[in-house]
Amino acid sequence: MSSNEIQIKGVKAQSAANGLATASTAAKNRALQKIADALRRNSKKIMAANEVDMQTGKRDGLKESLFDRLLLTGPRIDSIAAAVEQIIALPDPVGIVLGGDIRPNGLHVAKIQVPLGVIGIIYEARPNVTVDAAALCLKAGNAVILRGGKAAFHSNMELVSVIASAVEEAGLPRDCIQLIESTDRAQAQDMMQANGLIDVLIPRGGASLIQSVVKNATVPVIETGVGNCHVYIDESAQAQMAHDIAVNAKTQRPGVCNAMETLLVHQAHAQGLLPQILQTMSEKGVEIRGCEQTCAVFLPAKKAQQNDWQEEFLSLILSVKIVPSLEAAIEHIRRFSSKHSEAIVTQNIAAAEKFLAETDAAAVYVNASTRFTDGFEFGYGAEIGISTQKLHARGPMGLQALTSWKYVVRGNGQIRV
Amino acid sequence: MSSNEIQIKGVKAQSAANGLATASTAAKNRALQKIADALRRNSKKIMAANEVDMQTGKRDGLKESLFDRLLLTGPRIDSIAAAVEQIIALPDPVGIVLGGDIRPNGLHVAKIQVPLGVIGIIYEARPNVTVDAAALCLKAGNAVILRGGKAAFHSNMELVSVIASAVEEAGLPRDCIQLIESTDRAQAQDMMQANGLIDVLIPRGGASLIQSVVKNATVPVIETGVGNCHVYIDESAQAQMAHDIAVNAKTQRPGVCNAMETLLVHQAHAQGLLPQILQTMSEKGVEIRGCEQTCAVFLPAKKAQQNDWQEEFLSLILSVKIVPSLEAAIEHIRRFSSKHSEAIVTQNIAAAEKFLAETDAAAVYVNASTRFTDGFEFGYGAEIGISTQKLHARGPMGLQALTSWKYVVRGNGQIRV
Repeated sequence: MSSNEIQIKGVKAQSAANGLATASTAAKNRALQKIADALRRNSKKIMAANEVDMQTGKRDGLKESLFDRLLLTGPRIDSIAAAVEQIIALPDPVGIVLGGDIRPNGLHVAKIQVPLGVIGIIYEARPNVTVDAAALCLKAGNAVILRGGKAAFHSNMELVSVIASAVEEAGLPRDCIQLIESTDRAQAQDMMQANGLIDVLIPRGGASLIQSVVKNATVPVIETGVGNCHVYIDESAQAQMAHDIAVNAKTQRPGVCNAMETLLVHQAHAQGLLPQILQTMSEKGVEIRGCEQTCAVFLPAKKAQQNDWQEEFLSLILSVKIVPSLEAAIEHIRRFSSKHSEAIVTQNIAAAEKFLAETDAAAVYVNASTRFTDGFEFGYGAEIGISTQKLHARGPMGLQALTSWKYVVRGNGQIRV
Repeated sequence: MSSNEIQIKGVKAQSAANGLATASTAAKNRALQKIADALRRNSKKIMAANEVDMQTGKRDGLKESLFDRLLLTGPRIDSIAAAVEQIIALPDPVGIVLGGDIRPNGLHVAKIQVPLGVIGIIYEARPNVTVDAAALCLKAGNAVILRGGKAAFHSNMELVSVIASAVEEAGLPRDCIQLIESTDRAQAQDMMQANGLIDVLIPRGGASLIQSVVKNATVPVIETGVGNCHVYIDESAQAQMAHDIAVNAKTQRPGVCNAMETLLVHQAHAQGLLPQILQTMSEKGVEIRGCEQTCAVFLPAKKAQQNDWQEEFLSLILSVKIVPSLEAAIEHIRRFSSKHSEAIVTQNIAAAEKFLAETDAAAVYVNASTRFTDGFEFGYGAEIGISTQKLHARGPMGLQALTSWKYVVRGNGQIRV
């Protein structure tokens, strides 16, 4: 029965994707405007459904931290609608000519950007992802099949119903957005193995959700999110800049993937700068887990355990290690990095270039906070997630990450000899 | 024990990939020349190892068709070496600036093409793939772990030893090419799940090998190869052109993935053109499996069974269906296509454009044979395979398909507010 739902919705999504692939930019933008309007117009209905989820969560003992993510208020729905309107202004990625030429035999070979087709998104509690993902997929000409968390079930049902109706009203296929209604595990498993029906899966959520999708999916996956990010303060770093970048990378928003988890400091700064930085961190509520030398220069530090070097804390905890050289910092990062975002603070150009060249991560920084790894900060105007794999899309994913290409070849009777 | 081999070689490959990622174009080209020279210089040793495989194959009853693929002769080794030399002439894909700009806060964000890292290749009998894959991976700055078929084991061992020594002699890391020596299944399984050690797996071989990798891998996979390709002869097609393209697409080299498997013909041509084409096909030894109407107009045709429409024959067998319209042809292709290569023969521009827009495949053709879907024919100068998935690379994969990118961000103290 559960695989039936994926099968039925997958076939409908394929058909909707066929229709959407050739839809004009104007038609897609009209649909996006109708979605934004409908969200605002139906905000009471949406809040009522959300209230059911909130009550259910209270009854079932949902974690306290998740209620704020789950809650939809009038202003929040308005800002979700405004985000949809921002996507209207972005250029349509479909139809862009990526390359091509006329071959010696006269064949015209053009490489044209096209939608991916059907995108599956598996995510957790936040109902804003429902709207966000639907709008981005639609702009790039893709149908989307959503599987949200059980905690947001009623909110998602209502949101998808409002969006699908708006899309239909705009003259595009209603089935270009569908929600998987069954919330059992077998269902998720079927979705991960719906080869031929789903072209790509994008998991959005915590590390365990993402690992489960990577492990179980036979459909291609874009792995997102996990960030064990480092800032390395080089011997030649300017002290105030190093202090500010480290504090910003850790504390400006500790719960996100581009926040720093480990601070590496050249031993030249072990006595002066490092204790100052850690003092500021402490004042901001950061728990310090240091190497032996760190514990000696900053007494409130706890001794770091081996797994502290690989942990994505996503909270006010920081591992700190004093290193003898740039090379030792690069080596530490190679060993523990999740290849998300890595930064060096230095006034030495040779050190900066060595770090940039030898550190393998989606984003590598000189003299800036790791917190900038973000689709909006990089100028994409949107973000469907941050890829930590190297295939297809790496780093912040904008609309282009939701496309593929096809070769369009025009001849006048060419055959191969 | 088996997972030990992947573990050990994977760690070595990671380290080699780090070295290779920053190697200059000159150093990589020097290594390629040394590989070509060493293959020619060691051709007797390579042929001796190949002879062991040939004898083992005879003893173990290897399929007759596989011996020719397995055989290495002096001229074949010379042409394998010449193929390596051709890769020297190709532009280095590493370091190309793909985009970027200066953000309002002054951050310089550059998107730079980089190697993928460690590439795993799982393949069958052909030992030429060993050299080909190693040379392409090296040029794009990647380390490669090869797992070849058991039948070519001694040939592959000798080839990899010759190549690794040549690479080392050129001053690059020897471990940038390694062969998995254990040929048991558990080993292949470990390789498919070596997340963190292997960045991407590319299977090269028959449909069952590829499906097994797609099903079992947790490492990202680029799916290659399977082609159920169609040619549709439209109402307005020019008869001679249609005849020649259909015959070429089926018979010029029937055993490859871009050969036609199903011919779709508009009913306007059921009486005149179709029997002529099928007559030529028959004379070239093609077995015809037709729809009912086809069987009525061409008596030697057998009746097609349902699975004939989805089969990749890779031999002189052709399914033939008469369709009432362009729309019916597009619908048939949507249902059965493996999304590899699809062609229309027509003099009608509107029909051509509709077909190109609505057919979802790696390559879509007007008035040309499907046989052109190939890295060399498209001007890439090399090919590591033909991707039939939409993620990362679609269609013929040249050196660019073996790269990713990273964002290199330079600031002067920017923090996020």
